Amino acid sequence: MNKIAIAQINTIAGNISSNSQKIIDCINNAKKNNVDLIIFPELALMGYPFGDIFIRHKSIITKQLKALEEITSDTKGITALVGFAEPTCDANKKPFYNSVAVMQNGKIINIARKRLLPNYSEFNDYRYFEPSKEPSKIFELNGEKYGILVCEDSFNDKSFFKSDALYGVDPVEELMKQKPDTLINCSCSPSRCGKEYIKHSLFSSIAKKYSVNYIYVNQSGYADNLSFDGTSRIYDKSGELIFRAKTFEEDFVITSDLKGKINTLPVGMEKEININEFTPEYTNDLDRTYKSIVFGIKEYFKKNGFKKAVLGLSGGLDSSICAVLLADALGKDNVWGISMPSRITSKESKDDAKILAENLGINFLEIPLADAIDPLKNMLNSAFEIIKTDKYEKSTTIENLQARLRATLLWSISNEHKQMLPIATSDKSEAYIGYATVNGDMSGGFAPIADVTKTKLFALGRFLNENRAQKNAIPQAILEKPPGAELKINPKTGKTVCAEEENMPYEFLDEIIWFVENKGFGFDELLNHKFYYEKNNTLSIKEKTEWINKFFRKSQFAVYKWHILPPSVVVDIHSINSVEYRQPIISRIN
Amino acid sequence: MNKIAIAQINTIAGNISSNSQKIIDCINNAKKNNVDLIIFPELALMGYPFGDIFIRHKSIITKQLKALEEITSDTKGITALVGFAEPTCDANKKPFYNSVAVMQNGKIINIARKRLLPNYSEFNDYRYFEPSKEPSKIFELNGEKYGILVCEDSFNDKSFFKSDALYGVDPVEELMKQKPDTLINCSCSPSRCGKEYIKHSLFSSIAKKYSVNYIYVNQSGYADNLSFDGTSRIYDKSGELIFRAKTFEEDFVITSDLKGKINTLPVGMEKEININEFTPEYTNDLDRTYKSIVFGIKEYFKKNGFKKAVLGLSGGLDSSICAVLLADALGKDNVWGISMPSRITSKESKDDAKILAENLGINFLEIPLADAIDPLKNMLNSAFEIIKTDKYEKSTTIENLQARLRATLLWSISNEHKQMLPIATSDKSEAYIGYATVNGDMSGGFAPIADVTKTKLFALGRFLNENRAQKNAIPQAILEKPPGAELKINPKTGKTVCAEEENMPYEFLDEIIWFVENKGFGFDELLNHKFYYEKNNTLSIKEKTEWINKFFRKSQFAVYKWHILPPSVVVDIHSINSVEYRQPIISRIN
Repeated sequence: MNKIAIAQINTIAGNISSNSQKIIDCINNAKKNNVDLIIFPELALMGYPFGDIFIRHKSIITKQLKALEEITSDTKGITALVGFAEPTCDANKKPFYNSVAVMQNGKIINIARKRLLPNYSEFNDYRYFEPSKEPSKIFELNGEKYGILVCEDSFNDKSFFKSDALYGVDPVEELMKQKPDTLINCSCSPSRCGKEYIKHSLFSSIAKKYSVNYIYVNQSGYADNLSFDGTSRIYDKSGELIFRAKTFEEDFVITSDLKGKINTLPVGMEKEININEFTPEYTNDLDRTYKSIVFGIKEYFKKNGFKKAVLGLSGGLDSSICAVLLADALGKDNVWGISMPSRITSKESKDDAKILAENLGINFLEIPLADAIDPLKNMLNSAFEIIKTDKYEKSTTIENLQARLRATLLWSISNEHKQMLPIATSDKSEAYIGYATVNGDMSGGFAPIADVTKTKLFALGRFLNENRAQKNAIPQAILEKPPGAELKINPKTGKTVCAEEENMPYEFLDEIIWFVENKGFGFDELLNHKFYYEKNNTLSIKEKTEWINKFFRKSQFAVYKWHILPPSVVVDIHSINSVEYRQPIISRIN
Repeated sequence: MNKIAIAQINTIAGNISSNSQKIIDCINNAKKNNVDLIIFPELALMGYPFGDIFIRHKSIITKQLKALEEITSDTKGITALVGFAEPTCDANKKPFYNSVAVMQNGKIINIARKRLLPNYSEFNDYRYFEPSKEPSKIFELNGEKYGILVCEDSFNDKSFFKSDALYGVDPVEELMKQKPDTLINCSCSPSRCGKEYIKHSLFSSIAKKYSVNYIYVNQSGYADNLSFDGTSRIYDKSGELIFRAKTFEEDFVITSDLKGKINTLPVGMEKEININEFTPEYTNDLDRTYKSIVFGIKEYFKKNGFKKAVLGLSGGLDSSICAVLLADALGKDNVWGISMPSRITSKESKDDAKILAENLGINFLEIPLADAIDPLKNMLNSAFEIIKTDKYEKSTTIENLQARLRATLLWSISNEHKQMLPIATSDKSEAYIGYATVNGDMSGGFAPIADVTKTKLFALGRFLNENRAQKNAIPQAILEKPPGAELKINPKTGKTVCAEEENMPYEFLDEIIWFVENKGFGFDELLNHKFYYEKNNTLSIKEKTEWINKFFRKSQFAVYKWHILPPSVVVDIHSINSVEYRQPIISRIN
């Protein structure tokens, strides 16, 4: 039996010299261990996703082909599968094939080209790649036969996907006609809610169905708002999982050392999450969400040359969760939490912010806003005396001014320090309906929770308090009080206005979001839908209609904000992140 | 001969009810005038570009098909060509064909489907459309035969494009085998530098080559950063232009009323612009650039429900050009220019800003920054005493603070007024190398000149002073002084630092940008390239190397800023606008 190495590496798109060095290091390491076959992820040499980069920076293509030659010449005594962007050199075709080179003893003996090109959600393969029209050829090594699939090629099994199968051909079925002993799947597959269980079930069922060994090698890394989890796997001919690599980190393993090694997945991730049905419970996805974001932060900062983060701590849920994620990703010493209370910030909020920072051990500072707000207000008041036309009686000016002043302070602090980024703390529920201030809480160098809804954030907060090594870092009060930006006072109650008063209950909003994103529900379907919220609360048709209308009205207007959201980590089944969902600002949804 | 109506309409993606009403109105108008055949642009019913909108808002598809039926039933006694997104209803295919329905006497008698799908630059057709594998069928009307092309279908003539032809088939050649008397091209073709002359030459050459009448119907409108110019045309069988519709507005014309009517193009647009060669002159593209942006502003504001704009007037080039464009797009009474001098703003700049505003007749206000800067500085100074680690000796903190405070004031003013948007005044040269402040000059609801380089802006300024009805609105000093944000003092000279001191001469930078965007030049090619700048200035290899390196270093780091740029108007041959050029933030170009 051949000794196989799985090289679950992390690359940077376009950085050919560093990617190829990493590949060569792995090959040399494999050679030292007398490995017969080493497998790299899809597009390992070019890095993925590379977008349009090669169009302006053409030298990358030449560099890649030169590096491919060098790697090939380094394969004396070993076979290596290296993913690369293979120029089609045909003006009538797309620029590249998405290919895997089979290198052996200094020569490329075979090339497998991707057949099925995903073009939905975050994928846009047809912009860059020409689909191969022919099945790839299997190759033989010491009497064993191997067939190569490139990622999506393995995702069209008709007995598994049934009517959801997207393509006419099934490359697995075709490849199996050549009777390989083992299928190898080279992938760049990002982590999304519910995806892990589908992948596991699919690969296992293919192995069993065809009685074939199945090796899945996925890249680890973060790019373009996506966290790639790695989690490479081997299944035997009965479909049993016999190896699983690490999740959200690089890994290098050799089959002879495995001894049935199955690394643990994030809690709950191994369980089925029914992505076709909405549940207000997020239990099985919380640890993955946490690790996916922490990994994304780590990677984004490292790959862009940053080490530290500064964020405003309001004593509310969003900024508290962000602080925990940042502390775990960057180390507590690298996080600065700044409390910037205004005159209407409650003592409780100030205390909660401080306690959270103390619990986490991050740097903490309080900068009261009042001294700066007042002169700004005076400046504006004199301006508004002059610019009188169409003045709103009730405007959001002063509310937004507080949020923007806070962001200005954070950017100033980041300017003053080396390798520091300010953080945008907007969550998904609020970004969806535009309840976030431009140049305020939605401004920053990174937006950790822009794809996490508010109800999921509450669940995540409880999960973190229970499951992190340090228990209950987030003060209980933060997980219990109704969310609100504390930007204005309700004259009736004398208290600060909470967000749900201005919008609708988050429980209701998050269920709308789920059905719009996953089922394409419009107004009528939502009105006819029985919400979880309605099970425990009385809700008049009038109010339900108002809330649903408000959702469509506000989310239509929020598209502009989605376009200028800072980089984030996509974690949900679907998101408003522009890497995935592309709605022109000028468009109508109703 | 048939009486033909050209309906150069302006639609909104997804707004089926308004689009179909517009189509029906045009058809009824045509019927009143005894028109035989009325032609609408590509995707007239769905609106273009519609992006992913139909994925979440599925009801749009049903609404569109229902509207298609209604329009069809309205075609008693007339033939209408209506572009629509035709569901393929095949899970193995892309969701739609990009189709044109031939409606006649209440029935759809023919459907032409787009064959060539552009997938480069701003086009991403393969994400949504299935290419038709067969030539469309011609149709006959009162003895005349018509063949239908959908936009790109007409852009693969091998004798015209030679080796640049992108596709294997030429739908025009195929269609001509059926011997139509007239070719009809239904398009959604945005305006870009140099494109107009190519289109004219191409259409004319096709008409002449095949001795066929050629009718081109293009949409007018703005969406997703693109200005669609309209400029529909008719060529006779000798290739002569016999009609040209209006540019940058809607138009409705009937052939019997033409009498050789050829509307004028923006100045210079009818002339050839060699897009394969760099020239530091922009003469033939200035009027188009001006009109394209003015149209984009008008459209963006109107379609999003805004009427007014507020911008900072620094007395510099960028904000001055923006003020002129806004005044011409929205009307002078709808523009507020705010001068926000700091202590280091020169008297000249303040005066220039004021004179400009007076010349344009826009609203003007001066709000000195000092009163707000000082308390903020104090707040930050105390904070920086506490956060001591890694403090930069020379930071950009105070410079950026001024820019951010200005943007905060503009957003506040827009908050306080109805239907008002603040304007981001960043230009393309500066955005390219990240010489723009996040939450500062690059923040706003719209960025009019984000695709215009600085040298082109100087040329545009001179052009506007000469060619607008009101001459010399921009004070001459603004067009002569070196650009600079007046954010800091050079201790050696005691004067404010100009931008070229910090970066490199704009003349040089803009030439780099052109060669990177249009020729994919890398470091070596740029170093070997003889720049225009070098003809009139001595430039050492050392400094040239430094500037080129600086460009790559800074533009690598600027990609984040490109991702959060506000909506703009694409005008150049290529741009950094994310609608066109998609570079992941995590990627390396060198």
